[in-house]
Amino acid sequence: MARSAHPLRAGAGLAPFFKAASIAVVGASDEVTKIGGRPVHMLIKHGYAGAVYPINPKGGLIQGLPAYASVRDTPVAPELAILAVPASATPAALRDCAARGVKAVIVLSAGFTEAGPDGAALQAELVHIAREHGMRVLGPNCLGAVNVADRLIGSFSIALEEHMPPAGHVGIVSQSGNVGSHTMQSVARRGMGVSRFMATGNEADVDVADGIAALADDPDTHIILCCMETCRDADKLINALRLARERGKPVIVLKIGSTEKGQQAAASHTGALTGSDAVIDAVFRRHGVLRVRSVEALIDIGHAASLLMPKRLPRNDAVTLVAASGGFGIMMADAMSEAGMALPALAAHTQQRIRDAVPTASTGNPVDASAQMSSRPDILLKMLTALLEDPSDSALVLFMSLSLYNTRLRGIYLEALAQVRASHPDRLLMIISQGPADAVEQINALGIPVFSSIDAAATGLAGLLRLGQLRAAGEPDASAADAPPAEPVDSIIFQNEFHAKQALGNVGIDVPREVIAADADAAVRAAEAIGYPVVLKIASEDVAHKTEAGGVVLDVANAEGVREAHARILANVARHAPTARIDGVLVAPMLRGGTEMIAGVSQDPVFGPIVMVGMGGIYAEVLNDVAVQAAPVTEDEAMAMIRSLKMFPILDGARGRPPADIEAAARSVARLSEFAFRHRDHIADIDMNPILVRPRGQGAVVLDALMIARAAPATAE
Amino acid sequence: MARSAHPLRAGAGLAPFFKAASIAVVGASDEVTKIGGRPVHMLIKHGYAGAVYPINPKGGLIQGLPAYASVRDTPVAPELAILAVPASATPAALRDCAARGVKAVIVLSAGFTEAGPDGAALQAELVHIAREHGMRVLGPNCLGAVNVADRLIGSFSIALEEHMPPAGHVGIVSQSGNVGSHTMQSVARRGMGVSRFMATGNEADVDVADGIAALADDPDTHIILCCMETCRDADKLINALRLARERGKPVIVLKIGSTEKGQQAAASHTGALTGSDAVIDAVFRRHGVLRVRSVEALIDIGHAASLLMPKRLPRNDAVTLVAASGGFGIMMADAMSEAGMALPALAAHTQQRIRDAVPTASTGNPVDASAQMSSRPDILLKMLTALLEDPSDSALVLFMSLSLYNTRLRGIYLEALAQVRASHPDRLLMIISQGPADAVEQINALGIPVFSSIDAAATGLAGLLRLGQLRAAGEPDASAADAPPAEPVDSIIFQNEFHAKQALGNVGIDVPREVIAADADAAVRAAEAIGYPVVLKIASEDVAHKTEAGGVVLDVANAEGVREAHARILANVARHAPTARIDGVLVAPMLRGGTEMIAGVSQDPVFGPIVMVGMGGIYAEVLNDVAVQAAPVTEDEAMAMIRSLKMFPILDGARGRPPADIEAAARSVARLSEFAFRHRDHIADIDMNPILVRPRGQGAVVLDALMIARAAPATAE
Repeated sequence: MARSAHPLRAGAGLAPFFKAASIAVVGASDEVTKIGGRPVHMLIKHGYAGAVYPINPKGGLIQGLPAYASVRDTPVAPELAILAVPASATPAALRDCAARGVKAVIVLSAGFTEAGPDGAALQAELVHIAREHGMRVLGPNCLGAVNVADRLIGSFSIALEEHMPPAGHVGIVSQSGNVGSHTMQSVARRGMGVSRFMATGNEADVDVADGIAALADDPDTHIILCCMETCRDADKLINALRLARERGKPVIVLKIGSTEKGQQAAASHTGALTGSDAVIDAVFRRHGVLRVRSVEALIDIGHAASLLMPKRLPRNDAVTLVAASGGFGIMMADAMSEAGMALPALAAHTQQRIRDAVPTASTGNPVDASAQMSSRPDILLKMLTALLEDPSDSALVLFMSLSLYNTRLRGIYLEALAQVRASHPDRLLMIISQGPADAVEQINALGIPVFSSIDAAATGLAGLLRLGQLRAAGEPDASAADAPPAEPVDSIIFQNEFHAKQALGNVGIDVPREVIAADADAAVRAAEAIGYPVVLKIASEDVAHKTEAGGVVLDVANAEGVREAHARILANVARHAPTARIDGVLVAPMLRGGTEMIAGVSQDPVFGPIVMVGMGGIYAEVLNDVAVQAAPVTEDEAMAMIRSLKMFPILDGARGRPPADIEAAARSVARLSEFAFRHRDHIADIDMNPILVRPRGQGAVVLDALMIARAAPATAE
Repeated sequence: MARSAHPLRAGAGLAPFFKAASIAVVGASDEVTKIGGRPVHMLIKHGYAGAVYPINPKGGLIQGLPAYASVRDTPVAPELAILAVPASATPAALRDCAARGVKAVIVLSAGFTEAGPDGAALQAELVHIAREHGMRVLGPNCLGAVNVADRLIGSFSIALEEHMPPAGHVGIVSQSGNVGSHTMQSVARRGMGVSRFMATGNEADVDVADGIAALADDPDTHIILCCMETCRDADKLINALRLARERGKPVIVLKIGSTEKGQQAAASHTGALTGSDAVIDAVFRRHGVLRVRSVEALIDIGHAASLLMPKRLPRNDAVTLVAASGGFGIMMADAMSEAGMALPALAAHTQQRIRDAVPTASTGNPVDASAQMSSRPDILLKMLTALLEDPSDSALVLFMSLSLYNTRLRGIYLEALAQVRASHPDRLLMIISQGPADAVEQINALGIPVFSSIDAAATGLAGLLRLGQLRAAGEPDASAADAPPAEPVDSIIFQNEFHAKQALGNVGIDVPREVIAADADAAVRAAEAIGYPVVLKIASEDVAHKTEAGGVVLDVANAEGVREAHARILANVARHAPTARIDGVLVAPMLRGGTEMIAGVSQDPVFGPIVMVGMGGIYAEVLNDVAVQAAPVTEDEAMAMIRSLKMFPILDGARGRPPADIEAAARSVARLSEFAFRHRDHIADIDMNPILVRPRGQGAVVLDALMIARAAPATAE
């Protein structure tokens, strides 16, 4: 696993980026649209209470403030420095900051890793200086950091040019400045308050994980919205996510660059490799992150969660849908079902209460309440009350079409909603409406989330449910916070499948009773001891594809057959691979009756050993039907991985097949993952292929296995 | 296939719903919010030029117009009547209309099929009266019809209460009144003009297909937006879609009720059965319909298409993406790739021109143009011009974040966009922006579509591409417009697999050379003639599951084996099914080497015989990996079906397998579909399972087949 590049814990030393009594702006300019002018301008304009020291060799006044030739000359040592000088001048500026004892520096300037090898060298120099002096550097090529309440603006974001967002409890951390800035503006446009903003840019030192940790520890921040392109340090990210969970702060992440084309763009954008998307997805799931797929979902769900936290997040997957129209009801039902929500029937008593209020209503779920429901506020209130008091305890989603554009209907809706919120303060009610904006704001002000489309509402409710579940109970997490050091292995495990399986058998994984026979007589003795029928396979580290080499004979029924097979295998291999070193011939029981699965381990450059499980066979391979997680995994996690396979119904007794022993398969996967993690510095890859998973209660046996050594033992940086 | 319920062609007799010189409103009321008051009110308010005759037994004046006791009393026979009387009074009112010679009647009233058996009886009575007198009835329980230009409002839609939409070229037809009304309002709010609106409600007579045909024939309508829940008449729908295609009018359909839960709601909403979603999807695809998945996509794509038609619809799947931010570029790339668009690299010359305009730009695709691109109108114009002149001829999508909210940036963008539209009038440029609304309107006024999110733009561009492709070239369509009558079949085909395969062989499908042997000697003779190894299988119409009955022996190598297998099969079947009639034992060649597929035919209640093709084996079955289409299909269509399978890579040579003879498989599927269609009144189901598809050039052989007779020959209504 990629270790932290320096020994600080996630978020350590980040306080001055958000709380500083004095700020130096190096490269300050009188021109307010310039990168060095904008921070000074905005600090003054928006009323930052601390000292601002413009740094410019020309001296004099800059935007009305006395300027200093160097950060070494300021009246007191600034707690934060913002560098807005050309890339080539940043190392000297950073050294000046170090000399003055500045511990936190924002480098807004571009021209580093993203600009080619020369830029990369400059960026490496910044890191070197920062490490040497124990400084934290945000950027370079970043949009900086903002503390909204304190008007501390270490940024040149154009989003802050005209207005500051209202101060509040949403924290935003984004690698991309523009995406972060868009999120901040959108959050503000929804009337939500922002606590902190941080954009990490090239992430020479401070990364998104640091930002998450800093916001987790910030008392003003109640929810963290994050946009991430690349994870560079698995330990730090995991520690940050653990901290956020401990502090009870939901983390919603938009991870971008999930498709191949997207990943190309990511690589050229920041010069960083994007990790495997499936791996980061699994890591997010394990550590309680809600991953969203669009910036709209990030903002929608962030907004809704901030309105509903902590008491009104959905408690179960049940939802009741109401529209004045059957057609929209069907569309809502489609979208909610696809998002994984359940639509329970209403209690008979509830249905009667709805009909009492709205005689023309159809009282299924979705409820087709007809236009009658909005004819008077008291009718609407009666119907909503009946629905919120239904014993299903489900979330209630009310579709409004464009009704709020009609003055009469707007009045009716707003009156009924205000009353029902007051009478049922703990119930979850959501609205689907496309405006107008001021009516939506009025509804939001009641603490009711509004989504602009059916699809957004379905995605949103499913996301909120997940946040509710994550808060209710942490998921199992076998990955050790302080992992014991890696242990070496006997290199014999890399020699052939026999030794690989022996090693797996030693950690409790079920493998066949098998023998390496040195000659035909020994093979017969082994077969008699094992019991017929048997399989014979060549054992050689030089024969990777045993079947293709004619090195496998299945279903051998007697001693005569064993002798014949033994001779045939040796002859085939001698012809196919004359120079191969032969360890002998493996004799194993011929096992049948079950479903074939595969499991294995490979190395992710960031997250280390990754365990994989999937169905055996070409169909599964073509569909890429596998589940992954960073090793080690618990048996519960392994079970969840198996259950997530598209082909899971085959294991679960589809089409009259006997249910497979998935518990045994999950145990094997968990043991495999522990083994791979323990020997993470020595084993690169492991295949267990196939695993014969027998009917429930009868176990899962690894029929073949392969282990590949790491080129050289990994060392800590 | 469900035949038209009466002999009129799709859309026949619908003219008076949109063009009528006089309208009677039966059940007219002075109270303008009542169902009988609103049409009179809106006809007067919005300036309908024809005569309006309020009908009310009380007589006197209604909303200032003289009222008549009956439609029989009006000065001239009205060309259109609107019924707004209680359900129980509608038959008498409809008879009055018939007596007066009215040929088109809108029944707004509810209380029919949707209200239970009594309502269904009333609805049947309406249909009976209409058929008897050659009238067309729209509804009941519907939102009626509107001709916007003529202010002809045969509706009580609340959407028309305050304003009429502008007159224009978008036609809307919807089963659900509310969804149709929402679409009309949304279209108008986007500044698009509407030609006609029709909501069909319970569809006792006029259905969505009629509406599509009527709009296809309407010169004011250039594009048809449709919301459909149920197709009741396959012929009529197909004829309507053919007409629209002939007239060059794109049809965009939101078909709702696609998931199980949605379909439940559909059933309870209109009392109609929703057809199989996969079948209607296939029929839409065949007939050039663009199917969308949300009402937002219906409106987005309808709007964009109306701005771009006819010359600027996308010509290929290439798109160039531009943002001021790498992060948004990656998100766009992800979304566009997922939507099936390609992101070609820009020509070197184009890249140089971009760098000349914007030195900080990263010139991949997506282009990260940095904030510099919007610093001056001439810079933006230079960059956009370079992109639009790139030889890739791709669509250009420009992401604007929230920039238009900034006054300075708004001016820069609008100036550059106006210039580039004027200089490149034939190129496709799309914008992603969230407003403000008036800036979006200004951009729309330039003929540039604006999407509010990255996902909407990706869905939209992919949909526009499909519309462009549909206009460019019709897809193959083997379904006969005037299908020849069904032919009977020899019922022997239902007796056993031998006769089923003989029938398939007779229409050119490859089946094994096989023989039914009456005794063991005959079996041996057959095996010798066929050549070893052979398979023996029981032939009996009473043994459906041959393997389970012990009725199959594979891989028989010689005469002794044939005798042994013959005896064993007869003994097993005698024990397993002592009363089964035995036709003999089938002797067939033992064929190996290929990939197993399945194909078959079943009956859809609306679309008749449906042909299905999929991969063989339990994996494909569990994943429901099949493709369907209404029979008959051409070989090209069959090939497209096979290519659409998730497992297609297995047939196409994945993982080093030899590519399979999919051409032969497609031929077999086409022949099967023709056979099933020809005998559609007599054959209910056909299974060809498995089909052994051999390596390319070696054919596809149906190893087993089953045919099931229809319970009784279908008769035309």
